[in-house]
Amino acid sequence: MAPPSVLTPRALDFPRWYQEVVAKAELAEGGPVRGTMVVRPYGYAIWERIQAELDRRIKALGAKNAYFPLLIPESFLRREAEHVEGFSPELAVVTHGGGKALEEPVVIRPTSETVINASFARWIQSHRDLPLMVNQWANVVRWELRPRLFLRTTEFLWHEAHTAHASAEEAAALARRVVRQVYQDLCEEILGIPVLVGRKTQRERFAGASATWTCEAMMGDGKALQMATSHELGQNFAKVFDITFSDESGERQLVWQTSWGASTRLMGALVMAHGDDAGLRLPPPVAPVQVVVLVARAGEGVAEAAHQLTQDLERAGVRAQLDDRPEPSFGRRVVDWELKGVPLRVELGPRDLAEGRAVVVRRDQAGKASLPLGQLAREVPALLDQVHQGLRAAAAEHLAGRTRRVEDLAGVLAAAREGFAAVPLDALGDEGEAALNAEGVTVRLV
Amino acid sequence: MAPPSVLTPRALDFPRWYQEVVAKAELAEGGPVRGTMVVRPYGYAIWERIQAELDRRIKALGAKNAYFPLLIPESFLRREAEHVEGFSPELAVVTHGGGKALEEPVVIRPTSETVINASFARWIQSHRDLPLMVNQWANVVRWELRPRLFLRTTEFLWHEAHTAHASAEEAAALARRVVRQVYQDLCEEILGIPVLVGRKTQRERFAGASATWTCEAMMGDGKALQMATSHELGQNFAKVFDITFSDESGERQLVWQTSWGASTRLMGALVMAHGDDAGLRLPPPVAPVQVVVLVARAGEGVAEAAHQLTQDLERAGVRAQLDDRPEPSFGRRVVDWELKGVPLRVELGPRDLAEGRAVVVRRDQAGKASLPLGQLAREVPALLDQVHQGLRAAAAEHLAGRTRRVEDLAGVLAAAREGFAAVPLDALGDEGEAALNAEGVTVRLV
Ligand SMILES: [Zn+2]
Ligand SMILES: [Zn+2]
Repeated sequence: MAPPSVLTPRALDFPRWYQEVVAKAELAEGGPVRGTMVVRPYGYAIWERIQAELDRRIKALGAKNAYFPLLIPESFLRREAEHVEGFSPELAVVTHGGGKALEEPVVIRPTSETVINASFARWIQSHRDLPLMVNQWANVVRWELRPRLFLRTTEFLWHEAHTAHASAEEAAALARRVVRQVYQDLCEEILGIPVLVGRKTQRERFAGASATWTCEAMMGDGKALQMATSHELGQNFAKVFDITFSDESGERQLVWQTSWGASTRLMGALVMAHGDDAGLRLPPPVAPVQVVVLVARAGEGVAEAAHQLTQDLERAGVRAQLDDRPEPSFGRRVVDWELKGVPLRVELGPRDLAEGRAVVVRRDQAGKASLPLGQLAREVPALLDQVHQGLRAAAAEHLAGRTRRVEDLAGVLAAAREGFAAVPLDALGDEGEAALNAEGVTVRLV
Repeated sequence: MAPPSVLTPRALDFPRWYQEVVAKAELAEGGPVRGTMVVRPYGYAIWERIQAELDRRIKALGAKNAYFPLLIPESFLRREAEHVEGFSPELAVVTHGGGKALEEPVVIRPTSETVINASFARWIQSHRDLPLMVNQWANVVRWELRPRLFLRTTEFLWHEAHTAHASAEEAAALARRVVRQVYQDLCEEILGIPVLVGRKTQRERFAGASATWTCEAMMGDGKALQMATSHELGQNFAKVFDITFSDESGERQLVWQTSWGASTRLMGALVMAHGDDAGLRLPPPVAPVQVVVLVARAGEGVAEAAHQLTQDLERAGVRAQLDDRPEPSFGRRVVDWELKGVPLRVELGPRDLAEGRAVVVRRDQAGKASLPLGQLAREVPALLDQVHQGLRAAAAEHLAGRTRRVEDLAGVLAAAREGFAAVPLDALGDEGEAALNAEGVTVRLV
């Protein structure tokens, strides 16, 4: 029996499917101010796990967390002209505080770049203060006229790390290490999303950067999504904010910097990379519920056995949840748990119990298996790992299947309708890139 | 040899001492917009530990984290008139976004009360949706004209939890459980700060609450600081936001609610409750560095032995840091680590090494001990526990020594000059409370 269709099929309207999954899986909803977002408990529980995994990797590189103010004087942004050009229409401006008009308006941070660099200028005096590596978890605001939950919202959550080094080589090496050890590792090992790693072209990179490294992933519709970026900043900000240190021989030198970040957009990527027409499919490392134990039909001892199994799973270190609700119907509850992307579903009814077995359903593939009840708690961790590898393999296959090697611009345009195009750099050049942009195709990485 | 005095003595000017500790221990500094705060890496590392301990306790009660928008339409606050009366002069108002004037100004959340309740009204339909328990970690803004870092800042970090229940009894029981199991437990077991738990008088409690529970602690100057509060809200917000559920018999009923929160003010409490004239004294559970291993004087094998000891301590699960810097001087480095409140200091020089011993100094008491090097890693966890108990006992003794049982208003006024007064409720009454307020004395709890 096919489950009732609760979502628009992806092939029919991918953006609409996305919107429906985000709403029906209870990940997020719009806030009262247009473009803002309420991240609901189920969505936030996923984000907390992504955040913890990122935080561990960021700290492993030697960065320390800190917190910088939400409000920034307008004059600060003017110090860095290129920067303010980029943001001005995106800024939210506070003109009143303390019950009266402010003498100087303040803006809500679109990033903390300027405040952090102003702090760096005070904190860094000697080569002994280097490298300085600071990370911040925070909300930022960039006014968004065409919002999409998680992908483009007026307020979003992110981390931004800023570092200062004594040499260009050390800074460049760190920016590259970050893109591999923090972002690529998170995307592939935890989120199960294969990424392409490379540099942005000059057209695409952050204005203040001398090089921008990126992780790009392919979504279910064949389009690219930027998962995270890491910038080599050279001495651009050091000059603007006068960030200098005295070197071993006592000379003042400008520092060399990097900055890197990732945001709640990763939540959108998770939905779009793994989701199918039945809803979310969550990689077990970030799934708030890894196994749901469903009472399929009531009967003597069934609820007790399901409860016992849930406890055994929890004791085995699995995030398990019991669903013994008498309503809604079993079918409706199955649809719901599939929508929510729970990696494994265990179904238990009177007949299963009589046979000492339970039905196990993997969210990453069709079909059911029947397993002895007594073995389940032992076998589930390995099954979860198989689901993780299954999702990852499917995403890798999708990426490979939709990437074509082509030789010229016409080939790129044809390939980009279906997915990614890999083209020799010398067949492209800056003019070729401009021509592609005119057709709505971007060069994601080199 | 007494260390050079780097701080104003507490007895001379307690507020100034506080300001100096916060700056010199590198906990925080003012941001570019008046009243805002940069929490520096060392301060933030302490806050992260407080946050993790709170988060664990909040989740143990069954609450789930979520995230609600920073920006709130002005009209939302007007829905809850009493609320806006209380906040209006404190609000930061955004009038421009997306490069133009907004049709309706939006405010930066002073709390998320209104947005969360608006969500509750949508999310709660049936008794099966109850209890609903949601917590948020976020920044809030309340314009502050007389800012003090951590204690009163225009922007601060906090958690606020909101819950909805089917019965008054269940809501009231939760509000009381929170003040004991979340806040009192955190303050006493983790922060080592004994607290008095009780209800606020009608004069002192939150306008929207039918009862407010509080944890009050005594600071080093004998003054009280409110550590956290938990409110029984009755159906006040449920009426305003129309938060109803259908009960077992299908009737619509208003929910019963609670809300509770604690903020970065806890950082200020930590400084003021335990600090001494040499600086911070950190309870080991929240100390970013629990043991510093200092090379007192260079010499054959000393640096290697110090390095080895640091590794052994880390392997024993201790947060240890090696300080083998050739400069600044040993004395200056000792003063620095004392300022930063590191619970244990191990000093190692050539003579100690020759004897196979090291000097151990506890931050909570005067005097030094010499211990065999080989035993240190094994003994440090117990020593850290002794420091924790030592700080806690000192705070408890301070509280007991400065609290006087008195019988009348005159007694209260006399006692309040030195510390706390405990007075029979019937000797006070609302008129007595008004008289005390006129003298600058507040009734902290009943
Ligand atoms: Zn040097
Ligand atoms: Zn019922």
